[in-house]
Amino acid sequence: MSLTVVGSVAFDALESPFGKRDKILGGAATHFSLSASFFTKVNAVGVVGGDFGDEEWAVFKRHAINTDDIEIVPDGKTFFWSGRYDYDMNTAHTLDTQLNVFETFNPKLSDNSKSSRLLFLANILPMLQKQVREQCMNAEFVAMDTMNFWISSMKDELIETIKVVDCIIINDAEARQLTDEPNIHKAAKKIMDFGLKAVVIKRGEYGATLFTKDNYFSTPAYPLESVFDPTGAGDTFAGGFMGYLASQKEIDDDTMRRAMVYGSVMASFNVEKFGTERVDALDYPEINQRFRDFKRMTHFDDIPFERASTAE
Amino acid sequence: MSLTVVGSVAFDALESPFGKRDKILGGAATHFSLSASFFTKVNAVGVVGGDFGDEEWAVFKRHAINTDDIEIVPDGKTFFWSGRYDYDMNTAHTLDTQLNVFETFNPKLSDNSKSSRLLFLANILPMLQKQVREQCMNAEFVAMDTMNFWISSMKDELIETIKVVDCIIINDAEARQLTDEPNIHKAAKKIMDFGLKAVVIKRGEYGATLFTKDNYFSTPAYPLESVFDPTGAGDTFAGGFMGYLASQKEIDDDTMRRAMVYGSVMASFNVEKFGTERVDALDYPEINQRFRDFKRMTHFDDIPFERASTAE
Repeated sequence: MSLTVVGSVAFDALESPFGKRDKILGGAATHFSLSASFFTKVNAVGVVGGDFGDEEWAVFKRHAINTDDIEIVPDGKTFFWSGRYDYDMNTAHTLDTQLNVFETFNPKLSDNSKSSRLLFLANILPMLQKQVREQCMNAEFVAMDTMNFWISSMKDELIETIKVVDCIIINDAEARQLTDEPNIHKAAKKIMDFGLKAVVIKRGEYGATLFTKDNYFSTPAYPLESVFDPTGAGDTFAGGFMGYLASQKEIDDDTMRRAMVYGSVMASFNVEKFGTERVDALDYPEINQRFRDFKRMTHFDDIPFERASTAE
Repeated sequence: MSLTVVGSVAFDALESPFGKRDKILGGAATHFSLSASFFTKVNAVGVVGGDFGDEEWAVFKRHAINTDDIEIVPDGKTFFWSGRYDYDMNTAHTLDTQLNVFETFNPKLSDNSKSSRLLFLANILPMLQKQVREQCMNAEFVAMDTMNFWISSMKDELIETIKVVDCIIINDAEARQLTDEPNIHKAAKKIMDFGLKAVVIKRGEYGATLFTKDNYFSTPAYPLESVFDPTGAGDTFAGGFMGYLASQKEIDDDTMRRAMVYGSVMASFNVEKFGTERVDALDYPEINQRFRDFKRMTHFDDIPFERASTAE
């Protein structure tokens, strides 16, 4: 098996100008593994309560995601998050967070999960991320996410974790906060200096940018006239990125560029409907059509300007 | 002659975290024509006072910009703008504006300027832009800029002007304000519906996006670790865009894409030093090197994902 993800599996309640959902499947590991499952086999590691029902498990099963390492606490309740989006869909306003069984989450990885070629540490306590990483010493490429809360409350522990992974996938505000550096290019460089091979900065409606030692790659976001529900877009991006990399023999500059585009493709679908609805129903022709759309959106012929060739 | 620009020629006073200048050459028509002059012959139309000195004229002369239509009011003073940038270099804080001779600016176009193949109407009173446009009825491609002040104070007149040009080049906040539409893709579509061939949205550090009837093209900004002085970046972009188009026989989707990149190239140089300093000193190898950098920053191989070809 080639890709393991450790993170939250949750129920979300959402309100936006486009509608309302009381209790739908959510969580970082859910969005990530669903997205990655189009490209590779995924092991999901997480925890749920006894309230996690057949309908929820069916989403994972439909995509052949290995859920053996999703622990079930029968008398516990699943992590619950409730949020609201206003017309500016960029910011989620948290209404309620009930950690429930996630509060004492202690990831237990089977040998199968431990032996994955790629590993993604979704946003959880930095020390837990580090413990998981150290259980997967044969992983060829390890990426992680984090959030503003850990950056402000335990930066030292977070940096110790960053030092043992290959890649971080965070948004621009988090990169600035982590480095106290307003310029995003300087911020990325400072983060690279923790010993990373790659830094991926997610920029919401402005796309995403990849920094590696010798290269720089930037992709716009897919032009969407309506964003229905941005919840999980970042994890869906990471799932497309890591899933595509897992499908490729080499993890190099060329495959990472395409992984950035597949990540953007998957994220663009995720926001078109509530929760996991859209990605759950995706097919390969749709995915590759949008991949080609990205090519058309960004392509130009490399014809340098020559004074002599002008129309004058 | 192939490209005429009508707009302000000014003195700027600037303060930023990187330094201070008391009185340097500025103005939309200045930045535009300097940038465009690398690609085509430019006629600049504007007005200056008797205080406009040899040093300022020398900048135009060095780049063979035709200044015959820059009117001199010997007993008047040149338009003066003073601004400050904080560490967030995205927003200019205006400290002082003295319109001086620009207050009664009434563009007088020679037959030479009127017969240009391309025309750029920099940010001036919308009715003046319309008058100038109507004097250049043979122009093949006419683009315009505007600003928040005209959008809020004379939207109807502004829209009448937009209806007689081919292309508008504005920033994202202006596009949203003009259409009361927070989504930038919907906003661009609404602006297209005024009868334009192209809408160019400048997005600062996030790059620029081109909307045409059938196509969409997006380019990132050049990754700069320090932005010294963003004054005139938008006009420098427009100068590169229009100048490159003027150098090409056809104005079509392919040349507009490259024009977007050359606009971004020129703007990226502009912000590296104060005022016109950097663009004034540019050479073609530098310009084309950065053009190739943009290709490398955005290029990926169009290899669609196939389940069968994966590493598993």
